[in-house]
Amino acid sequence: MKILVINGPNLNLLGTREPEVYGTLSLDMIMSELQKYAEELGVEIEPFQSNIEGEIVDAVQKARIDCSGILMNPAAYTHTSVAIRDAVSAVKLPCVEVHLSNIQDREEFRKTSIIAPVCIGQIAGFGANSYKLGLKALVDSINSN
Amino acid sequence: MKILVINGPNLNLLGTREPEVYGTLSLDMIMSELQKYAEELGVEIEPFQSNIEGEIVDAVQKARIDCSGILMNPAAYTHTSVAIRDAVSAVKLPCVEVHLSNIQDREEFRKTSIIAPVCIGQIAGFGANSYKLGLKALVDSINSN
Amino acid sequence: MKILVINGPNLNLLGTREPEVYGTLSLDMIMSELQKYAEELGVEIEPFQSNIEGEIVDAVQKARIDCSGILMNPAAYTHTSVAIRDAVSAVKLPCVEVHLSNIQDREEFRKTSIIAPVCIGQIAGFGANSYKLGLKALVDSINSN
Amino acid sequence: MKILVINGPNLNLLGTREPEVYGTLSLDMIMSELQKYAEELGVEIEPFQSNIEGEIVDAVQKARIDCSGILMNPAAYTHTSVAIRDAVSAVKLPCVEVHLSNIQDREEFRKTSIIAPVCIGQIAGFGANSYKLGLKALVDSINSN
Amino acid sequence: MKILVINGPNLNLLGTREPEVYGTLSLDMIMSELQKYAEELGVEIEPFQSNIEGEIVDAVQKARIDCSGILMNPAAYTHTSVAIRDAVSAVKLPCVEVHLSNIQDREEFRKTSIIAPVCIGQIAGFGANSYKLGLKALVDSINSN
Amino acid sequence: MKILVINGPNLNLLGTREPEVYGTLSLDMIMSELQKYAEELGVEIEPFQSNIEGEIVDAVQKARIDCSGILMNPAAYTHTSVAIRDAVSAVKLPCVEVHLSNIQDREEFRKTSIIAPVCIGQIAGFGANSYKLGLKALVDSINSN
Amino acid sequence: MKILVINGPNLNLLGTREPEVYGTLSLDMIMSELQKYAEELGVEIEPFQSNIEGEIVDAVQKARIDCSGILMNPAAYTHTSVAIRDAVSAVKLPCVEVHLSNIQDREEFRKTSIIAPVCIGQIAGFGANSYKLGLKALVDSINSN
Amino acid sequence: MKILVINGPNLNLLGTREPEVYGTLSLDMIMSELQKYAEELGVEIEPFQSNIEGEIVDAVQKARIDCSGILMNPAAYTHTSVAIRDAVSAVKLPCVEVHLSNIQDREEFRKTSIIAPVCIGQIAGFGANSYKLGLKALVDSINSN
Amino acid sequence: MKILVINGPNLNLLGTREPEVYGTLSLDMIMSELQKYAEELGVEIEPFQSNIEGEIVDAVQKARIDCSGILMNPAAYTHTSVAIRDAVSAVKLPCVEVHLSNIQDREEFRKTSIIAPVCIGQIAGFGANSYKLGLKALVDSINSN
Amino acid sequence: MKILVINGPNLNLLGTREPEVYGTLSLDMIMSELQKYAEELGVEIEPFQSNIEGEIVDAVQKARIDCSGILMNPAAYTHTSVAIRDAVSAVKLPCVEVHLSNIQDREEFRKTSIIAPVCIGQIAGFGANSYKLGLKALVDSINSN
Amino acid sequence: MKILVINGPNLNLLGTREPEVYGTLSLDMIMSELQKYAEELGVEIEPFQSNIEGEIVDAVQKARIDCSGILMNPAAYTHTSVAIRDAVSAVKLPCVEVHLSNIQDREEFRKTSIIAPVCIGQIAGFGANSYKLGLKALVDSINSN
Amino acid sequence: MKILVINGPNLNLLGTREPEVYGTLSLDMIMSELQKYAEELGVEIEPFQSNIEGEIVDAVQKARIDCSGILMNPAAYTHTSVAIRDAVSAVKLPCVEVHLSNIQDREEFRKTSIIAPVCIGQIAGFGANSYKLGLKALVDSINSN
Repeated sequence: MKILVINGPNLNLLGTREPEVYGTLSLDMIMSELQKYAEELGVEIEPFQSNIEGEIVDAVQKARIDCSGILMNPAAYTHTSVAIRDAVSAVKLPCVEVHLSNIQDREEFRKTSIIAPVCIGQIAGFGANSYKLGLKALVDSINSN
Repeated sequence: MKILVINGPNLNLLGTREPEVYGTLSLDMIMSELQKYAEELGVEIEPFQSNIEGEIVDAVQKARIDCSGILMNPAAYTHTSVAIRDAVSAVKLPCVEVHLSNIQDREEFRKTSIIAPVCIGQIAGFGANSYKLGLKALVDSINSN
Repeated sequence: MKILVINGPNLNLLGTREPEVYGTLSLDMIMSELQKYAEELGVEIEPFQSNIEGEIVDAVQKARIDCSGILMNPAAYTHTSVAIRDAVSAVKLPCVEVHLSNIQDREEFRKTSIIAPVCIGQIAGFGANSYKLGLKALVDSINSN
Repeated sequence: MKILVINGPNLNLLGTREPEVYGTLSLDMIMSELQKYAEELGVEIEPFQSNIEGEIVDAVQKARIDCSGILMNPAAYTHTSVAIRDAVSAVKLPCVEVHLSNIQDREEFRKTSIIAPVCIGQIAGFGANSYKLGLKALVDSINSN
Repeated sequence: MKILVINGPNLNLLGTREPEVYGTLSLDMIMSELQKYAEELGVEIEPFQSNIEGEIVDAVQKARIDCSGILMNPAAYTHTSVAIRDAVSAVKLPCVEVHLSNIQDREEFRKTSIIAPVCIGQIAGFGANSYKLGLKALVDSINSN
Repeated sequence: MKILVINGPNLNLLGTREPEVYGTLSLDMIMSELQKYAEELGVEIEPFQSNIEGEIVDAVQKARIDCSGILMNPAAYTHTSVAIRDAVSAVKLPCVEVHLSNIQDREEFRKTSIIAPVCIGQIAGFGANSYKLGLKALVDSINSN
Repeated sequence: MKILVINGPNLNLLGTREPEVYGTLSLDMIMSELQKYAEELGVEIEPFQSNIEGEIVDAVQKARIDCSGILMNPAAYTHTSVAIRDAVSAVKLPCVEVHLSNIQDREEFRKTSIIAPVCIGQIAGFGANSYKLGLKALVDSINSN
Repeated sequence: MKILVINGPNLNLLGTREPEVYGTLSLDMIMSELQKYAEELGVEIEPFQSNIEGEIVDAVQKARIDCSGILMNPAAYTHTSVAIRDAVSAVKLPCVEVHLSNIQDREEFRKTSIIAPVCIGQIAGFGANSYKLGLKALVDSINSN
Repeated sequence: MKILVINGPNLNLLGTREPEVYGTLSLDMIMSELQKYAEELGVEIEPFQSNIEGEIVDAVQKARIDCSGILMNPAAYTHTSVAIRDAVSAVKLPCVEVHLSNIQDREEFRKTSIIAPVCIGQIAGFGANSYKLGLKALVDSINSN
Repeated sequence: MKILVINGPNLNLLGTREPEVYGTLSLDMIMSELQKYAEELGVEIEPFQSNIEGEIVDAVQKARIDCSGILMNPAAYTHTSVAIRDAVSAVKLPCVEVHLSNIQDREEFRKTSIIAPVCIGQIAGFGANSYKLGLKALVDSINSN
Repeated sequence: MKILVINGPNLNLLGTREPEVYGTLSLDMIMSELQKYAEELGVEIEPFQSNIEGEIVDAVQKARIDCSGILMNPAAYTHTSVAIRDAVSAVKLPCVEVHLSNIQDREEFRKTSIIAPVCIGQIAGFGANSYKLGLKALVDSINSN
Repeated sequence: MKILVINGPNLNLLGTREPEVYGTLSLDMIMSELQKYAEELGVEIEPFQSNIEGEIVDAVQKARIDCSGILMNPAAYTHTSVAIRDAVSAVKLPCVEVHLSNIQDREEFRKTSIIAPVCIGQIAGFGANSYKLGLKALVDSINSN
């Protein structure tokens, strides 16, 4: 079982920037920790990062070929991208949306997710741990179907 | 470490009612499965259910005495209770909000949480698994501080 | 056939208070008149009044055991209680919402009912007669199914 | 005592169209059943149907001459007609608004009634029975004044 | 002359919690200080606290028997409770709404009071002193009628 | 010079109904007083009344043939009729909108006019005198072009 | 195959009025050009125009007898008529909504269509050509089912 | 009978500025024409102009002493001044609001008048003639009481 | 200790106008009663009234020189003046906002205060007594810092 | 004459995905059918698809060089892209917006088009036929200028 | 070339108050620095400050006589004054709006400027430097026309 | 000191398109004029243009390495891009937002900037001069820290 892990815009800056908000781990560190956790769960992950909305649409589309599900932190595109929503909806792979920060406790415009309604569920607020929890939620969900 | 697990209004009907939406497990079954998982994590849980907003406020307040955190599914009160929000905010215990269903994919009024902004984070959409993921998220968070 | 008749907050004050708005009949008088009318219709009623939202949720839930339907005047909770709505929706008993006054001709916030969408229908504006009309509507509806 | 019974636009199609929403009774059948019920109540009814807003205004105005009250299902004009509202308000006859379907459980724009605030009350959701309940409510109200 | 003093949800935590917002006095201390001030004014007070909306409704209703007025800090229920509003409106006792903090300088949802329109007036922002000022305002108002 | 004077829905009831709001003059009396005033101004008027929106559209269209302007009290259609607006806009005759009552001091929905933006101007609040003032305004405007 | 072609309020003025907005063709010319095009497509059209909302409702209802579909330019009623929407929805004939002008590039209130959601689709902005395109779309759609 | 004629901010620039919008007459010319018309009506006018909101409040207050009514073009303060509204309401002199331009056909924020609800009525769109019509309306209204 | 007492627009009319709303006391009488109360409290007051927004800004600014706090009834400017808010905020003197009437029970636009968020608190609804309560609240607050 | 045919995000998935919503034709099949139709009309088409908003902007800009018009299905970007709107507006080529589904009958956020106001017109709801109708509309429009 | 430099309410307090927000320079210092910069640019400036909205209107009007442009920091009136907007619009002098702070990063109500739409442009966020940049922008703009 | 100058979507069309709105200068000409001005200021600029949101995010991120600040005209992305906002916020370089046109005087949706709150300030309305003013503002700001 392979899971595509999508990281949206600016997540490539993790660790070196605004550690008080997003923690001190780089995206590579988070992905490699997640890799280890994936092994524990007996699945493979394929990390992907892009700042370009349409490339994330492409990645979601390609996941149809060899992935069983998508773990996605859409970052800024959470609140603006109908295109990513439509892609998730079109490929019909189970998808879990994760966020490092508690988006309900930030600016008003960050409280709304355009993408969450077409996902299984949403996990937000637990820093890097959101990814692990999300991966577990996704794998459990796939296994139970 | 003891964790108070709060279940809001109508959750006592779980399993026997609307299984297509909320699954076939009763609240007791979910709580006892959660109990086992809590043992794995080395913590104790104290399940609580009430249909009365003010009793949930009371329960949150009492948690100060002997609990290290709160796992809460506020159900219908998620969207209407400033009183529970104020209680969580006042006791200053770490709190994680969980939901069985994906509240972002339901009626408009269910997309807003009055309580989430004073929690660590929110997990929604994974059925009974939301509780386990939430408990793990809460315990990890307490341990990392 | 037994029908639970729920009376929401402040309805226990009927008759002695604001007769120009709510009429001069006490709740007991309305219920005992309704009792007589129920006999005509060949059904039994079980009157219930509470000022506490969660107790109304409890009452709705208990109705599953021995009632065939619910006649409800949610009073102030009409406009604020997602919990009562969820209870009605969960027990799947036919429910009719009644109001003494014409809520469409009062303050703006009284025009919206959170509960009505999960009821069969709504009857408002006919004073104590709203209860009789509602009981008839409910019994007719149960009989026709 | 004569009661004008107004049926708004498209109600002439009842029975043959969308029976799953509006039942299998034609408007003629509903009116003739209502006629029988009116006899039981000792009143006369005068059924009227029009698809034209202004003709309904005319009908309301003419009711002043020989009717004691108006039973009205304004259908689509419920949500758009200030003219019918003003007519009801001007003739000062008691009026009861009825709906076949539960308008609180349909599209957002069907939840608002421009006419209800100038009526005695509103009854919605009980199919053809809404008319009988409405007639009874109206006659009881006229008799009690 | 006896005045019922109602304290809404979470006010029982005063003093030990969030002193930077609500001051260091416990509710008992505030009430006993208020007791002394009441004596100066020549009136008796009856302190009451509950976290349950419906119990506050009950308390308001019972005040009819032996109280001349109500001093109320509805706390969280200020912004959500139509039921308490209706109770105050029904019992027709003079009521003054008080708040420890300046609710106009907090979150947007705290700026609206559902209850204030049925009170004589509102006093907010003066800490424990809001109670004394409110008691004086209430007693002066009762005496001047 | 001939002026079409359009009177919208329910204005045929003037005088006999709600004199406290609309005065004791019937529409005929207002029109015949206006007739006299028109003679003073050296113009002819053609009074028209209908309760049917589309007939008012027809009347506006026909005015192209032999009228120099339109004096219109659209009554209830002021707030709902895009069709009348489009008719006025299409015929390009100068039009003045008049109202008996001060629509800015009534229900919120009466404060908006869909038609006024395509008129020369609006006169409201002076009872039957609004017609005279409007006729004078219209004739002066036509003469000054 | 016969297609009812409905033209809403003020379209009878086409050609002689505001040619810069609506072109120089009269409605008759547009209908007779459409007639020729209908012959090419092997269908018959029945043109209808009315300024009265309820007459358009009547026309839609009558189309059930001998028409296979409806081509409709509701003009001003596009934005205000729930009655026409309900008629289209009730008769269940395929319907295509057309507009001469690009309604998305006009006043804010012209951007919303109450009727379009119950049609197959909407074509706007191509002048008289909108009718031809709409007729072709409608016929193709009927043929492909 | 003396009438205070209030001219709000920027009206002192009339005639020399933006003649395409406000006409080529200066305020002095309009006032002296109005003076002549006042004589015809047998009343005296007292013109007043100020750019300062509070000075207009003062002028309204002083009118109590020797004026029978107020004719007011509040210009920009129409849309922003609660203070002028309160002054008109306090002095209880009959007031007519006039505007040179058709405010319903300008920017959205110019369609709302804070002051009109406390006036007898409103006249807008007839250039300098608005003043004459307004004066006549005011004098007629005073005389008819 | 000297306290500036600011009275906003139209408060100079108090007593002689609308006694049913604002009481029968003139502003002078209220100020001189307040003067006596100030003496009891051991402070001096400096009454100020203006109908001009900017003069109130000036007065607030000048208070920096010799006043310890500001008691302000901004009247109509409560709801419109960002300038007075900025002045209060800039001078950093403690300020208490008072109102004679219960602004929460009046028109919608009177429920919002632009100034209250930069004050210590707000007191409304107690007639002339609001000033005394406000002065006491202000002096107590200054003394306790 | 060459026409650029732009297909927005996720349209490359057509046919293999969600056939119940978007039909069973792949984008290639639709484009090659459109190619044949273009030949009938005597024009050339240049199909283009991208999931990346900015690449669509680029494509629109390049069309200036050798295209006479643009046929565009902006898909998800219909509702979010000011950049594509600005591109269409800047190149001043005639543009027709098409949609496979009836966007007026889908989620609320799909009813608004940011791009349509700068197009000639919009065609929606006819599946693959929308492209043909749109191409014809565009070519007719170009030819008639 | 002379430029009027208008400073709105509370700007006379600059330097001595809230230096962390508005810097440590007094208005005099800013104006005299601006004077030097004006000399470099070969223009003369005439500084003006008032807390009274109408006096700013007066100043704008007088600028017609001997000024070539206006540099304006409307401060609090930015968000509330239609009167100043109308004055700028009436005098038709080029105007540049400047702000010391970045108004887009402050309270919601400070993000809207009523005046900016009638100016050439807006400069905000650069402290005292905003004036210099604004003066240069204004002079460059005047010179280039 | 090197400054990255970002030009958003469609700015590559400057000069050849819509000169009446955006002037006759091409982007190259504006950039080379800005280059000269940069030399006067003693700084280096690095012009960048892209129509792709994510490439602008990339460019902002890369600026961390060798730039001291960012001058940005986000064009259409001003109103839609949370991703660019987050990038600016993450890299923590000083940024100034510039616009050629006065965005406060255009369509409603162009008045809001998502990016401005994380910039130092905003300059809009001065054509190509906006860039020079923005560069000066940015350099002055960097130098003064």
